[in-house]
Amino acid sequence: MNVEVAFRAEEAGAPDPEGVAVVIDVLRATTWVATALERGAWGIRPVLEVDEARELARSLRQAGEQVLLAGERGGLPPEGFDLGNSPTELLALDLRDRRLVLTTTNGTRTLQRVAGSGRVLVASLRNAGATARYLAALGRPVYLVCAGTRGRLSQEDVLAAGWIVRHLRVVGAGVTLSDAARIAEAAALAWEGRELEALEQAEHGRTLLDLGFAQDLAMAAERDVWPGVVALDGAWLRQVQDGATWR
Amino acid sequence: MNVEVAFRAEEAGAPDPEGVAVVIDVLRATTWVATALERGAWGIRPVLEVDEARELARSLRQAGEQVLLAGERGGLPPEGFDLGNSPTELLALDLRDRRLVLTTTNGTRTLQRVAGSGRVLVASLRNAGATARYLAALGRPVYLVCAGTRGRLSQEDVLAAGWIVRHLRVVGAGVTLSDAARIAEAAALAWEGRELEALEQAEHGRTLLDLGFAQDLAMAAERDVWPGVVALDGAWLRQVQDGATWR
Repeated sequence: MNVEVAFRAEEAGAPDPEGVAVVIDVLRATTWVATALERGAWGIRPVLEVDEARELARSLRQAGEQVLLAGERGGLPPEGFDLGNSPTELLALDLRDRRLVLTTTNGTRTLQRVAGSGRVLVASLRNAGATARYLAALGRPVYLVCAGTRGRLSQEDVLAAGWIVRHLRVVGAGVTLSDAARIAEAAALAWEGRELEALEQAEHGRTLLDLGFAQDLAMAAERDVWPGVVALDGAWLRQVQDGATWR
Repeated sequence: MNVEVAFRAEEAGAPDPEGVAVVIDVLRATTWVATALERGAWGIRPVLEVDEARELARSLRQAGEQVLLAGERGGLPPEGFDLGNSPTELLALDLRDRRLVLTTTNGTRTLQRVAGSGRVLVASLRNAGATARYLAALGRPVYLVCAGTRGRLSQEDVLAAGWIVRHLRVVGAGVTLSDAARIAEAAALAWEGRELEALEQAEHGRTLLDLGFAQDLAMAAERDVWPGVVALDGAWLRQVQDGATWR
């Protein structure tokens, strides 16, 4: 079971139709997705462009769905959006059975890059362990793709990738790591128990602190607190149900 | 004093005429260069192509120089070369005041990528500490460029970059790390004291073990054993003399 890591979305190789791609964007898209599903949302529809997101939300509402329109550009919600992409913001809302439309700068673009993989998951520190257990059960080649931030490596994404690697080595059989996977694992272990400190020092973390999102960092730094696994199911990101198998 | 790391040569950004680029190719080009200079060689001339290396060695010999022609393709010396790029091989030779011509797959190509930087150093685990002290004294922006192996990240290069970062943070003033620099530092610390084990598990390390170069890995894994600093001086890699200043 080969495990490869791309430290930035731009490095991701060609999608493997026999493998599983795992998109990681800890600050904040994939942490937000985990939080929304954790709180009962039906699913999240990732879209690339702001206008496309607005149009999709409108269509879904016309079809009678309960929809919230969420996303960011430069860390803040575009005009007319119901929500940004702050996971903290979700805590006050009743999301049960809601459909959410999300557009973010790096996370949704990275999802597009891995389209064509056999399966696409999204993961964060919150569900690194659960994701690793699911990957171990699938037994397919794993490609962890860190979103990064506008072409730059993001420390928090590499740490989450490293924790998935670490958990996979503990629970998985015949796991073979690339050098990049080894580096991610080593970095994760070096910061073990100090994930929040790591996020506060990281480039994108400091930007978010300046914008007033300290509580988002705290949520994003919580490791292995949610047992859910998130996969792309058609066009929607949804929680994987027990017993879900390969295709 | 900004410290940035490129994990693979292909990621290196535009050269900074005000900054210092440090090329790292632990297995084996920069370890070989350190060993040759440690043993008294006058300088190493890195060249891209095998034919170019042969031609240059011939010209230097015609000019009366004592020259050794060294390099590898696929880990082994090309036909007619005096040496491969095994640092162990150097231990039996008298290199005092010798000129060496070197062509390697990844290392010399990476040097070409950073041409145009204010200064170009090459470093390995053997002189990570010495290189960091020199960088701290210069006080210029630092760009650590890992050569990698045919486009793939190489664990051993990231670990050497991480040790330079670590030493810089200890001896340098006002050091600011990118996220990539933080990841490299964390990985280095996680493998502290187990550098040889890391190299033996690494992708390129395993290839070299298969080719019978176990002793090269042992030499490459020795950290901070040589106080020399290596810089590109014109077309030659030479040891920096005490008191050398910026240009």
